[in-house]
Amino acid sequence: MSRAATAEERRALVGLSRVVEPGSRAVVLAVADRGPVAVWEALRHGRPCGGVSPGLRAGAALRAEGYDPDHDLVRMTRSGLRFVTPQDDEWPTARLWWTPEPGLEAPPLGLYVRGAHRLDEAVARSVAVVGARAATAYGTYVAGQLSTELSDRGFTVISGGAYGIDAAAHRGALASSRSPTIAVLACGVDVAYPRGHDRLLGQIAQTGLVASELAPGTSPTRGRFLVRNRLIAALSLGTIVVEAARRSGSLATLSRARLLHRPVMAVPGPVTSALSAGCHDQLRSPDDPAICVTRVEEVLDVVGALGDDAAAPLRGPVGPRDGLTDTVRLVLDALPVRTGLGEASIARAAGVSSLVVQQVLPPLLAHGLVERTQDGWRLTTLGAGRPGTELRAHGPSP
Amino acid sequence: MSRAATAEERRALVGLSRVVEPGSRAVVLAVADRGPVAVWEALRHGRPCGGVSPGLRAGAALRAEGYDPDHDLVRMTRSGLRFVTPQDDEWPTARLWWTPEPGLEAPPLGLYVRGAHRLDEAVARSVAVVGARAATAYGTYVAGQLSTELSDRGFTVISGGAYGIDAAAHRGALASSRSPTIAVLACGVDVAYPRGHDRLLGQIAQTGLVASELAPGTSPTRGRFLVRNRLIAALSLGTIVVEAARRSGSLATLSRARLLHRPVMAVPGPVTSALSAGCHDQLRSPDDPAICVTRVEEVLDVVGALGDDAAAPLRGPVGPRDGLTDTVRLVLDALPVRTGLGEASIARAAGVSSLVVQQVLPPLLAHGLVERTQDGWRLTTLGAGRPGTELRAHGPSP
Repeated sequence: MSRAATAEERRALVGLSRVVEPGSRAVVLAVADRGPVAVWEALRHGRPCGGVSPGLRAGAALRAEGYDPDHDLVRMTRSGLRFVTPQDDEWPTARLWWTPEPGLEAPPLGLYVRGAHRLDEAVARSVAVVGARAATAYGTYVAGQLSTELSDRGFTVISGGAYGIDAAAHRGALASSRSPTIAVLACGVDVAYPRGHDRLLGQIAQTGLVASELAPGTSPTRGRFLVRNRLIAALSLGTIVVEAARRSGSLATLSRARLLHRPVMAVPGPVTSALSAGCHDQLRSPDDPAICVTRVEEVLDVVGALGDDAAAPLRGPVGPRDGLTDTVRLVLDALPVRTGLGEASIARAAGVSSLVVQQVLPPLLAHGLVERTQDGWRLTTLGAGRPGTELRAHGPSP
Repeated sequence: MSRAATAEERRALVGLSRVVEPGSRAVVLAVADRGPVAVWEALRHGRPCGGVSPGLRAGAALRAEGYDPDHDLVRMTRSGLRFVTPQDDEWPTARLWWTPEPGLEAPPLGLYVRGAHRLDEAVARSVAVVGARAATAYGTYVAGQLSTELSDRGFTVISGGAYGIDAAAHRGALASSRSPTIAVLACGVDVAYPRGHDRLLGQIAQTGLVASELAPGTSPTRGRFLVRNRLIAALSLGTIVVEAARRSGSLATLSRARLLHRPVMAVPGPVTSALSAGCHDQLRSPDDPAICVTRVEEVLDVVGALGDDAAAPLRGPVGPRDGLTDTVRLVLDALPVRTGLGEASIARAAGVSSLVVQQVLPPLLAHGLVERTQDGWRLTTLGAGRPGTELRAHGPSP
């Protein structure tokens, strides 16, 4: 799995994404272990395959009856959309790989994409802006304004294409033609959902990207929205909630961002507004409070933490270790590639304070340059930055 | 100084409060050391007195020329106001004593008070609500509503008697007749400042208290507002800022609350409102962020942290150790009265976790039951709670 995907592998992943609901830990682990072709051949016949449950196998076999992935491949070509696999150059490996673990759905098997941008470049500097469907004029204004300014500063705005805050975020980003915006859907990328956003989604695809792990033509379900939310969180450097009622669905995106150790931000609002209560709860969260953001500069303080990312626009592909400050380099150079190292030991090795280490590691984690182990922290292959190092998309770093 | 003040001492303190600006560290230390009579006799003649600077002595002597404290005492009786000294029963010793140190003005020499309530009882359960003079309709509404609900729950609302948020807070508290409200002024308690609040201040004095450390008839100055702010912070269990522009004067009250280790709270608002920007800055403060509060329950979570204070109304005088939870008692019992003890040692002695100790100590500090020393923490005489223990108002605990 550490070379370009063969046509057969691509066909198998397309098939799997058609017959299996996204987010399954067992399926992703089986694909990492046996390769997509073997897993596809097993599941389409409902045969045993690693830890995949009998129920999931039976469901896959039922859906696979009379189905041929080639139909999808032809249909995709006709509709001008593509299927990006973890072996493709444009796959944002550092963002879209994590250890499948309870509480967080597994990473995607692949992504259907509409739009001309390379996926990895589009998400290199990106922020998710999410919130309530039933947004107020205040929330819509703030989401739009913030997204225009983020786009002006060269940041891709990622959202879910829904009514309310999502739409305001996409429209705000479109108003600045500086950076693409990405709609990550809970249905096929060719499905107009909500129906009223047919035109908006078309505009997004023209200048940005519409992405989904669901096969073309698939309708959204409640479960798919929740599983989709982890993708919005994972693709972004950080997630902002602009307006959300208590127990709003958009808060699920924040909890997934937390599980992925990505920064979580909330925009405050009037305490008299029920649609800001969810944001205020996030700011008051006893364990891991959201960062209060009120202006684009404050967002850049959070997501532009690596080097001078926030100041300089991205021109063409940038290496993962480019643009880092000296302090960040010191910490990176002190990190091992195999066994994890504790923060105090990293600080000693780097010759910086523990506080600096604690401040530097989370953004490095968000950028996929370091990862947590049982013993502490270590470099990912991306973080090691050795030219020619093969990135293994479906397994942990060596 | 550990018995009731004599008539001569009271007269000396009235004289000192007339000729010396409040907040002087040197004067308060001199009074603690030599007693008020000696300091008054020295300063009224401009003579050397402890660490009091020649400039301050000269100013005091100039003001004392032809002045007789008896004039003030007679005037006070006529106007229905009283001078409360640290030796009086109603002095809230735990709140109004702290080590005079750079960065925070010294505690008051005494307080002029209009109103029937005992000062110590009125501040026993109290919250300061402060904010911008040029408040918006939103801020005025929130300050009023919060103050009514605090008063309904038996909490005294303390503010500064100014236009805007202060007035809304007082009026909100007056709307609930449940608890008194206290206006702490930067001028004499008989001065109608601002002029438009003549009637409001009269209403506050009728059902609550108007208090100031400035001699009757004294006009406000910029410096007196700043020095007054520490009194608002010191008299309250915690301070809330409802609306404040960046660099607003009301934020000075919060910085004084922080210096006094009292909890600091901020009410969020629209990010589009310049009058909420100061509140949001407080929530984002890197060192010691304000707690985000949006409803009265969230305020009670902060200031009602000691025992079941928040649930049960105060009926008559309550001992300082009444109503504490078992955990708080364990921590208190583990604290020494002489040498300070570190948090880890306290945790060991109390048989609770360090986290519990860290959570319990700040409210105990705010209630005046414990204090910080160079080595750690120890009980105050109030915290030791020994019946008949003399409280030394003008010196640290034994």
